[in-house]
This record gives sequence, C-alpha cells and structure tokens, in this order.
Amino acid sequence: MSAPSAPTLIALLHGPDRPGLVARVAGWIFERAGNILHADQHRDNEKGIFFQRVEWVPSEALAKEGRPSGLDAEAAAFTAFAATLGMTARVASSAHRPKGALFVSKADHCFHDLILRWKAGEFAGDFACVISNHVDLAAAARHYGLPFHHVPVTARTKAAAEARQLKLLRAAGVEFVILARYMQILSAGFLQKFGRPVINIHHSFLPAFAGGRPYHQAHERGVKLIGATAHYATAVLDDGPIIQQDVVRVTHRHSVEDLIRKGRDLEKLVLAQAVRWHLENRVLVYGHKTVVFD
Amino acid sequence: MSAPSAPTLIALLHGPDRPGLVARVAGWIFERAGNILHADQHRDNEKGIFFQRVEWVPSEALAKEGRPSGLDAEAAAFTAFAATLGMTARVASSAHRPKGALFVSKADHCFHDLILRWKAGEFAGDFACVISNHVDLAAAARHYGLPFHHVPVTARTKAAAEARQLKLLRAAGVEFVILARYMQILSAGFLQKFGRPVINIHHSFLPAFAGGRPYHQAHERGVKLIGATAHYATAVLDDGPIIQQDVVRVTHRHSVEDLIRKGRDLEKLVLAQAVRWHLENRVLVYGHKTVVFD
Amino acid sequence: MSAPSAPTLIALLHGPDRPGLVARVAGWIFERAGNILHADQHRDNEKGIFFQRVEWVPSEALAKEGRPSGLDAEAAAFTAFAATLGMTARVASSAHRPKGALFVSKADHCFHDLILRWKAGEFAGDFACVISNHVDLAAAARHYGLPFHHVPVTARTKAAAEARQLKLLRAAGVEFVILARYMQILSAGFLQKFGRPVINIHHSFLPAFAGGRPYHQAHERGVKLIGATAHYATAVLDDGPIIQQDVVRVTHRHSVEDLIRKGRDLEKLVLAQAVRWHLENRVLVYGHKTVVFD
Amino acid sequence: MSAPSAPTLIALLHGPDRPGLVARVAGWIFERAGNILHADQHRDNEKGIFFQRVEWVPSEALAKEGRPSGLDAEAAAFTAFAATLGMTARVASSAHRPKGALFVSKADHCFHDLILRWKAGEFAGDFACVISNHVDLAAAARHYGLPFHHVPVTARTKAAAEARQLKLLRAAGVEFVILARYMQILSAGFLQKFGRPVINIHHSFLPAFAGGRPYHQAHERGVKLIGATAHYATAVLDDGPIIQQDVVRVTHRHSVEDLIRKGRDLEKLVLAQAVRWHLENRVLVYGHKTVVFD
Repeated sequence: MSAPSAPTLIALLHGPDRPGLVARVAGWIFERAGNILHADQHRDNEKGIFFQRVEWVPSEALAKEGRPSGLDAEAAAFTAFAATLGMTARVASSAHRPKGALFVSKADHCFHDLILRWKAGEFAGDFACVISNHVDLAAAARHYGLPFHHVPVTARTKAAAEARQLKLLRAAGVEFVILARYMQILSAGFLQKFGRPVINIHHSFLPAFAGGRPYHQAHERGVKLIGATAHYATAVLDDGPIIQQDVVRVTHRHSVEDLIRKGRDLEKLVLAQAVRWHLENRVLVYGHKTVVFD
Repeated sequence: MSAPSAPTLIALLHGPDRPGLVARVAGWIFERAGNILHADQHRDNEKGIFFQRVEWVPSEALAKEGRPSGLDAEAAAFTAFAATLGMTARVASSAHRPKGALFVSKADHCFHDLILRWKAGEFAGDFACVISNHVDLAAAARHYGLPFHHVPVTARTKAAAEARQLKLLRAAGVEFVILARYMQILSAGFLQKFGRPVINIHHSFLPAFAGGRPYHQAHERGVKLIGATAHYATAVLDDGPIIQQDVVRVTHRHSVEDLIRKGRDLEKLVLAQAVRWHLENRVLVYGHKTVVFD
Repeated sequence: MSAPSAPTLIALLHGPDRPGLVARVAGWIFERAGNILHADQHRDNEKGIFFQRVEWVPSEALAKEGRPSGLDAEAAAFTAFAATLGMTARVASSAHRPKGALFVSKADHCFHDLILRWKAGEFAGDFACVISNHVDLAAAARHYGLPFHHVPVTARTKAAAEARQLKLLRAAGVEFVILARYMQILSAGFLQKFGRPVINIHHSFLPAFAGGRPYHQAHERGVKLIGATAHYATAVLDDGPIIQQDVVRVTHRHSVEDLIRKGRDLEKLVLAQAVRWHLENRVLVYGHKTVVFD
Repeated sequence: MSAPSAPTLIALLHGPDRPGLVARVAGWIFERAGNILHADQHRDNEKGIFFQRVEWVPSEALAKEGRPSGLDAEAAAFTAFAATLGMTARVASSAHRPKGALFVSKADHCFHDLILRWKAGEFAGDFACVISNHVDLAAAARHYGLPFHHVPVTARTKAAAEARQLKLLRAAGVEFVILARYMQILSAGFLQKFGRPVINIHHSFLPAFAGGRPYHQAHERGVKLIGATAHYATAVLDDGPIIQQDVVRVTHRHSVEDLIRKGRDLEKLVLAQAVRWHLENRVLVYGHKTVVFD
C-alpha cells in the first residue's frame, strides 16, 4: 500500500450488476495503455449492485508528464465510459492532494493526533486550516503552521456562524471537513451548502449510545466494551454512513473518567483510519452504508 | 485460577462503604484459622458502595473433613458476620456443584459447545437436562447422556408450557438455566417463580440491536463490527445485567449469512465465558449492572 | 461470501508481473461468456510478482449443465492460457468437494470443533476419515459417522506407521490432511510421498515458542499474549507457510493450565479459519509465505 | 481508577506465602487508622510466593496534613512491618511524582505521544528532560518546555557518552528513563550505575524477532500479526521483564513500510500503557517476569 511514484488514477464506480463489467473496465484501461495496480470489486447480491475500486497508471506518456491536465482529461474520459455501462464513477488523481479543514472545540487529542500523522506523511491530503468555537487551540494550531479561525457559536448566532464557516472554507479551497471532537451540530443547511464530505468521530459504538455523553450512557448501562465510530455527517445526528468502528474492553473498575481516557485512544485511531481511507479514495458511500476497499 | 484441591468458600458481598471493611473481613477469616486464597474488592465511589469477592480455605479441620455440613455452617456464620457490617453476602462452597438446565431450540452451536466444555472440565457445575420447544436436538442430547424434554410452546399454550418447564426444573433440582439460543421469551412470571439465575446469549452488542433478527439489523445499518452479549434475563427483554460481551470485525463483503456464521463463534465464546464466571461465583449483580471479579 | 448456486471455477495464479495481466485474464473469461464473481490481485513490488485469485461462472451452457467434465475442460483451458502469460495457475471447481483426513491424538477440542463445523456446512470439502496414534477418539469418530483408523507410532515403528497412513489416505482418496493436535511429527518423506497439503495447528504465536510445550515456554517467559498458528507442514518443524494466527491476552494470574484452556479456544478458531480458507481456494503458497485472498 | 484527592500510600510486596498474610497486612493498616482503597494479591502456587499491591489512605491526621515527612515515615514503618512477615516491600506515596527522562533518536511518534499524554494528565509522574543522540527533536522538545540534551554516541565515544548521560540524569534527579525508540543499546554498566527502572519499547512481539529490524524480519517470515513489547531494559538485549504487549493484524498486502506505519500506533499505545502502570506502582518485577496489578 505504499504510494507508487508515478501519478495514478483511482476510480470508485457502482451501478446495476451485469456480466462482463470487470472485463470491460480492465479492457478500457488496457487499450489506452494504462496498467492496473489494484482492482477490487464487490457485488451486493441482494440488490444486484456492482461496486469497484480500480487504480491504474495511465499510459506512460501521461504518467511521465504527470500533467494534471492530462490526468484530468483521462479521468473525464473514464467517467464518460463508465456511464455507457450504466455506472456512476468518481475518479481522483493521486497528483491532487485535497485540502481539509479541522473543526475543533476544546478537546485536543484528535487535533494533535491528526496533525502529527499528517506531518509524518500518513495522509494523501493536506490540512489547510483549523476552525473552532473556542480559542483554546489557537496557539497550538499556529505552532503547527495552520491558520486558526475562531468562530463562536451560540443558539442565536448559529446561522451567522455557519455562514462565516462556509466563507472560510471556500476561501481556503477546502474539499473535506473533519469534526475532530467539535462539540456543535452542523445544520442540514450547512452540510448541503458545503456539499463535500464531512467526517465525524462519535465516541460510542453506534448505533448504541447516540446523542450526548455516550461514555456516561455506557457506564450507566454497564457495558463491557466501549467504542468509537467515524462516519460521514448527515442531516440526521449520529446516523450517517459508518466508515470505521472499534471497541476496547472495560470493566466495572473503570469510572466514567477512565472510559473517557480510554476512549480518547479509540477516537484517535478510528478517526485517523477513516481519514486515511477517505483520502486514498477507498470509501464508496452507497445509501446509508459504505463500501470500504481496504 | 486452577481449582485448589481442598474445598473453599467463596463470598460475594456488598454494602455501604466504610473504613476497615477489608481488614474486618480478613480478620474474621484469619481468627477462625481460614486462609484467604483470593480477595478482590471494588468501590463504587459515586454511590459509596463496597464490593468484595473473597475465597478462602476454612480451618484445616473443616477442610480435611470436607463435610458439606461443616462448610455450610461456616458459610452461614460468615453471612451473619457480614450482616453485622451492614453487608449482604452470598457464600458458595466449592464442594457444591450447581445443576443447570440448557434451554435450546434448533440452533445447536452453543448447545454442543457448552456440553463439550462441561465434559472437558471447564465448568464448576453440571448440566442436568435439556429442555427444548423442538425435537431437533433430542438425539444429540441423549448421546451426551443428558435427559431431553420436549416442551412445545405456542402463544396459546405458553402458560402451560412454562408451568411444565418449572416442574421439570424443580424435579431435577436445577439451580440455573442457560438459554443457549432458545427462541422463546420467558415470561416475567416464569423468571419470578424460578427465582434463580437465567443466563441468555443475545446475538448483538447490546444495547445496539435489541429484539429480533439482530444480524439483519446490523447488516442493514452497515456496522463494521458485530457483537454478542451474555446477560442475566430479566422481565424486560434484552435489558438484563450484562455479564460479558465481545465483537468481531465485518466488512461490506459479508452477507447476512456470513454475519450469522461469524456470530456463532462469538456467541459460543461469550456465553461459555459468562457461564464459567457465573459458576465460579465471580459475578455480583448490583442494580442494573454486574461486577465481574475475573 | 455466500456460496453461489451455479458451479464456479476458482483460479489461483502467479508469475512475473507485467502490464495488462488483469485485463488479459478478465478478457479471456469474458470472451468465453464467463462472468467474474470475484477477482482479487496482489503485486509483490519488491520481487515483481503478480498474484491473482479469480472466481467466475463459466458460460451459461456449462453452468447449467454443471457437468464436471465440462468444468474440468474449462479449467484446463484456463491453465494453458495462464501459461501463455508466463503464469502458474491452479484451478478448482466449486463442484468438487475435496476429501480430507483428520490426524488426532488424545486432545479432542479441534477434532470436535472441525467435525461440528463440517456438519454445520461451514467447509467447502468433506472429512473422509480419522487417523490416530491413540484409540481415545475412536467412539466419538464413529458416532460422527467417520471411519477411525488406529495407527500406533513408536520411534521404532514410525516408518511402517507412515507407510500404513499413506495407504489409508490413498485408499480413501484423501486430498488434504489436517493435523488437529496430532502429537507426532510427520517425516519429510511422508510429506513428499503424500504430495498434498497438510495443515497443522501450532499452539503458539510462531516464530515465538516453536517446538514442544509452547504454553510452558510462554508461561516461563512471562508474555502478556499467547497465540496459535495454523500453517502448512513442511520438512522443517514449525516453519511452514503461515495461513492464520491469533492471540489472546493473559496475565500473571493465569497458570500454565489456564494458558492451555484459553489456548484451546484459539486453536479451534485459528485452525477452522485456515481450513475454511484452504477449501475455498483462498490460500496461495509462495516461497515461505502465503497470500490469503480473504 | 481515578486519582483520590487525599495522598495515598501504595505498597508492592512479595515473599514466601504463608497463611494469614492478607489479614496481617490489612490489620496493620486498620490499627493505624488507615483505610484500604485497593488491595490485590496473587499467589504463584508453583513457587509458593505471595504478591500484593495495597493502596491505602493513612490515618486522617496524616492524610489531612499530606506532609511528605509523615507519609515517608509511614512508608518506612510499613516496610519494616513487611520484613517481619518475611516480605520485601516497596512503598510509594502518591504525593511524590517521579521525574523521568526521555531518550530518543530521530523517530518522533512515541516522543510526541508520551509528552501529549503527560500534558493531558495521564501519568502519575513528570518528564524532566529529553536526551538524544541526534538533534532532530531539539526544537520540538523545547516547544514542549523540556530541556533537550544532545549526546552523540559512536562506538568509540560510547563510554564517555554514557558517563555524560548519567551525569545529566543525576543532575536532574531523574528516577526513571524511557527509551522512546532510542536507537542505541545501553550498556550493562550504564544500567547498573543508573540503578533505576529503564523502560524500552521493542517493535515486535517478543520473544519473536528480537534484535534489529524486526518489521523486516516479520515481513520476511510472513506472519499475520505484528506486535510491540514494552519491557524493562536489562543487560541482555530484548530479554527484560515484559510489562505490556499487543499485536495488530497484517496481510500480504502490507509492505514493510506499512508494517512500520501500523507498528507506530502499536508502539505508542503499548509504551504509554507501560509507563502509566509503572508510574501508578502497578508493576512488580520478579525474576524474569512482571506481576502487573491492573
């Protein structure tokens, strides 16, 4: 899974299943002198839907140039080809590193973790700025060299705050948002206007313990495992397509504070994995669920 | 954790916390020439409650005799002593192996697993009979040397069926029941009349996916982990005190049938662990939760 | 991963990597009116080797017939085609269920576990007989309807015993052997003469604690996890290609007996998973290692 | 496990087992008006050794004062009392936060992780300085407010370098050292002269893959899990008492670089857990092994 040096194209496609799709896709790439590095497909037999992630090095000419324009044209050609098969395709180029924004509040564990992983080269994308409803992480963000925007939010000012957030995102060319323990709910209107993926980390094993204070809920119920869930934010709270989940064992000895401490490690790992997969174009959203080509 | 050869007494006690409880309990045992093998305690700081599991070899005289009567008297003496500290105690003797009944329907994985573990010596108790609303496992039960009772249940005959089950349990001196994928809900009246622990295995990570067809629910929601939960049955379905839980990773590639197959392994492990702990007197029920001294 | 109803062909192929392999393979199948159900490939970038597992439904005509002869001819044709690409291929038909033999000694946990899973329909193959150097499991094997062969082994009689084992395997048409805690080492000569896969379960996380009494070794070293490893047996003890491994947490509280008990669950799960993958033609052995297309 | 507000004493004791030890220890504390918060004991039945960790709030008078001198006197009194039982005891006061030094080279993941956890209040101790044979982490250490000492090491200068390291440790009053991916082997002489615990993180599941480049070794062997091990450093490389271990699943798809990336997360979690336990006085070293009272 190490990054190949030549730029590649990565297509995520899905549509009604029919015989020969694998061969047709592979054939199209081969005819244009591309070389498939990875191809992974899945069939939902119940609903008759075909899913595929295919990554290829375009023709040597294109690859050597590495010109974004050439890659973009090839991507567009693939999308058009997929349409002739009745398939919806999204094609990304490894030469393009998407820009993201981190939304944070006061908790800093996911914030530090994501930025340190980014600086260690773990992500196929970059962070462009930090937006927070508090000022606590301003100095840390700037130490990391990231612009920090303080956008306070109250019930009364929420609409204006979201408008300002959207303006900041557009100004910075942000293509995805990570809610790194951001303690505000984004409105359906914000999500629609932004129109790009928003990844949230919820500190429970969803669908158990949706809503607020999930570690308190878990402690109250006496569960033996606590979890964390990374998902795409949707208009319905804690209900979006799940990207990744994990759990850790707890016992009666653990207080709520212990659950919170243990949960921090879970949240970091689960969110970082979701972000990594998202940026490697491994996550195909389909209805209420995801297909993760890992 | 290997079984000591001399018979031991095991007390589970709890009550309002106050200074000196550990010393008082240890002192009482020491004064009567007992030797503590294990002592494990827990404080619920929030509610100010003290919990302890203590296992000891009573005085050599008692131990050498191994007379149940002597052990029973010592157990009664301890219970009375605990009461003077404001504590509720339940004391079991390792010389007594409780008898249990397996309730099953058609699924046989937990049934075989529990019986083979029992025959391998993993449990500090014995199975006395198998009760089922179907006849599918009759031959297998008899092959294992266990009486099999077919008690069909329909909505109309449920009350009569439960009365017959209770009669069978009493006749066999049954002290605990295991619902090993028994596909009927026991009524609150049955649980009250039986008045002994009933352990159920639910095939999901509770409280997620309570109720019927949890693997279908999990598949529908697109979770990345499926779970199993062993709990004591109470009048409220799937809501009793949780003894043990575990999960296993799944992906979009897994059909509902795959989840069911993978879930079988989880159910076997989780239920067997809960039964083992229960029979080793490691589980203290307290309100809606358990304290498991493992 | 649920079994398709129409018979399928499954090819495992590998050879020097070169552009277009995915397209060539998919194209060959498509041209012959086959439909690819699964195709999974891997590149060893370091050594420049291409690996693929591809499963397809041959042309409807063949599929409807389901004639072994037609499937065999198609398999042979594919193998010849793969050779033209410089690839080595092994092609299996889902219509053929391989026959296996269980080698056991006295420990019965893997023995019961494998047979119960087989009867529950978890394996794409069948067990034909049980061979043991002890008589302890004779009655149980027969209860399951399996022929039981007692072949005692001593240092002096080992060569003769192995000759008899080989004769029994050939007479029963056995295509794979599972060493289900068989406490004898098969000679290099036996493995060579049998010439078919032999799957062993070693009760440690290899390469730690190879050789005898691995749980005692682990206890002595004070490790915090114990493991189990399923691997193909080779002439070098505990050194064959690893198919599957897993571990479980232990503490200082666990005696050697506890490690053995906990290890039994690991051994069952790890061995069963290896057998399942092997029979679904998901395991490609390559040098000292395996590629598992799961 | 949340920290109590009043200062506590924590004793780790061990010695030949004999009846009444639990009662004697609890009695001693009770008579001096102390209140036991936690008491956990273990018996090594094979070797006849008793181990205990007991944490108590000394008499209210002492507790209210919180005077180190009073606590120290009580600790000394307990140690003397334990000696009368034939037990070796080490008693720590929660009022004392030990100072530690981080030894690092170029890899920064454990370095950042430990310091951020320390700042988040996860450890019952403090970091006093960073010592490195490279300068790469100098700026980061200073940003965190920690003195950074560059002590280059070559084969020729090793003795002098270790002498300088010892001088730095003594000057800063360092009571424990953490080798946070420090790529030099400390000599037996250094360990002896320092005479305090040194915790190392080895990037494999020991005893598998001891020595250099363990991820390369693991990749070469084709294991299905990679691990990390935190242990006390001893004169024999990678052979000291193991404190904590964990593993993560890998497949043939993972290159050595992937193993290294996945291993970083393991190393962080395993080392942080070991440091947390060490500082909470939960780790009792005994021969070649540890008893961890978690």
